Amino acid sequence: MIPEQPGKDEIIETAKRIRPYIHRTPILTSEAINSISGVQVFFKCENFQKAGAFKARGAINAVFSLSADELLKGVATHSSGNHAAALSLAAKYRGIPAHIVMPINSSKVKIAAVETYGGKITFCEPTLAAREETLARVIQEVKAIEIHPYNNLKIIAGQATSALELIQDAPMLDVIIAPVGGGGLLSGTALSTLYFSHETHVIAGEPAGANDAFLSFHQKKLIPSINPVTIADGLRTSLGSITFPIILSLVSDILLADETEIIEAMSLVWERMKIIIEPSSAVPLAILLKNKQRFKGQKVGIILSGGNVDLSSLPWII
Amino acid sequence: MIPEQPGKDEIIETAKRIRPYIHRTPILTSEAINSISGVQVFFKCENFQKAGAFKARGAINAVFSLSADELLKGVATHSSGNHAAALSLAAKYRGIPAHIVMPINSSKVKIAAVETYGGKITFCEPTLAAREETLARVIQEVKAIEIHPYNNLKIIAGQATSALELIQDAPMLDVIIAPVGGGGLLSGTALSTLYFSHETHVIAGEPAGANDAFLSFHQKKLIPSINPVTIADGLRTSLGSITFPIILSLVSDILLADETEIIEAMSLVWERMKIIIEPSSAVPLAILLKNKQRFKGQKVGIILSGGNVDLSSLPWII
Repeated sequence: MIPEQPGKDEIIETAKRIRPYIHRTPILTSEAINSISGVQVFFKCENFQKAGAFKARGAINAVFSLSADELLKGVATHSSGNHAAALSLAAKYRGIPAHIVMPINSSKVKIAAVETYGGKITFCEPTLAAREETLARVIQEVKAIEIHPYNNLKIIAGQATSALELIQDAPMLDVIIAPVGGGGLLSGTALSTLYFSHETHVIAGEPAGANDAFLSFHQKKLIPSINPVTIADGLRTSLGSITFPIILSLVSDILLADETEIIEAMSLVWERMKIIIEPSSAVPLAILLKNKQRFKGQKVGIILSGGNVDLSSLPWII
Repeated sequence: MIPEQPGKDEIIETAKRIRPYIHRTPILTSEAINSISGVQVFFKCENFQKAGAFKARGAINAVFSLSADELLKGVATHSSGNHAAALSLAAKYRGIPAHIVMPINSSKVKIAAVETYGGKITFCEPTLAAREETLARVIQEVKAIEIHPYNNLKIIAGQATSALELIQDAPMLDVIIAPVGGGGLLSGTALSTLYFSHETHVIAGEPAGANDAFLSFHQKKLIPSINPVTIADGLRTSLGSITFPIILSLVSDILLADETEIIEAMSLVWERMKIIIEPSSAVPLAILLKNKQRFKGQKVGIILSGGNVDLSSLPWII
């Protein structure tokens, strides 16, 4: 069976499709972090992306790939995080409604972002079952097209464009490190690296408190995330049926970071680079700093996945 | 009497002199802030400068302009802030000692920065008298050359290079807004604007709680800062005998922002632009947002002066 995954041409087409709507985010470097890590690091700054995270890439690709018939119905998803805002933004650009099911305990910042972009929110209890049931009900009512946050080929192709740009702007990388939650960014990164920088390895960083991808990867079977406990709120989800096989076949390794290491890496980026990244974005740097010997002297690309943080509660302030 | 101020050629020479040691900082824009302000804003990001603030420009210029004889003695200053770190960095680049007198209540972050760059710290009581006495004693002992943080022509010429780059990268600005404390950045900005973008107005932003430049400007006489109370710690100093006449003759206006407005502007930049700026940097945006009608439809350059914030105590977290 041929694995279900976006091809090289599809990623190139996707980059063209979404280009008018997204930022080509900068690559930043930091002498201080190079010196601390013993590695030459190139940070791909998706924290500067529209709606504050790489998620805009996939959501815009998915929405702008809909047929005329599908467009009439609008889109729907359940999300407590960046995908909710990104899908609302994409739908706004396309002039269609976005129906967002959000758990009632979602952060005020995330709710405000969805509202800013005109997403229509339906609140539900904060369980996966309630989210799925509520979404099913909303879709039955409004007949909208569900756009899954990661287990969707158009989403994966969209997220792949971040690594494509990184490879174009910082060629000859030895390794690219991306964080892994549901695997949309990681599988897209692995595909772009396969197609456009074949010699580069892809490694994932995952919180030790949400190690389902680590377990799935090493046991070679999909193990769902159960009661994940991590500050990296974007990485609590489980891998999907589409993202997992891509990751299993193309990713070199998945490494874990504990909570203290994630917070330290996040704080290092804030202090030294003067940019705001969310905890999920700090996981790749955390695993790099934890495994300095392994990466010593290499040229490493790191995808800083987003910058949406509740500034009124920072992890280093007790 | 010909006013004492750096000439056009001197600023061009300064830009060449310091180029190998400083970052050419980027200009960032934000659709969200353009939309909120009704103005097209170009942010010159000195928060990304070496040692985290524009101060590196002046300090490096001053140190690299010293004669061979002067170099032997090292440099000295009293400072609780960014100039202390910048002068230590400049001295490190030149391989000479930097003697820094710091008040005992200086923030840990600022002390750590000076130590990182190898500055030799002498602590003193937190009064201007104690700072000046201690510095005089240190200079008598080690015979170092004093580098004043702003009332110094080499410092002013160095700070002027930030506006020079802004003018080169974002031409045809209607206005440039800079914060004013001792006036080194503001007088340098006014000179570069006079020489390189004559049609552009220069306006200063100052905290209402440290309004000595505002009073001095409008009463046309130098009025020292007495008991300034503001979160914008870089702007508590008084204008100097060299900076004041330049400001009086070249700056169009000085506008005030209160503490709430400064904190709101700072938080807006953090949230929307995902970059870290210190409170002093937020004052120009605060006066822009307070005076929207005055700037309506204009093309405005804002100098974000620095990004050195104690991340463990943020003003919006009580």
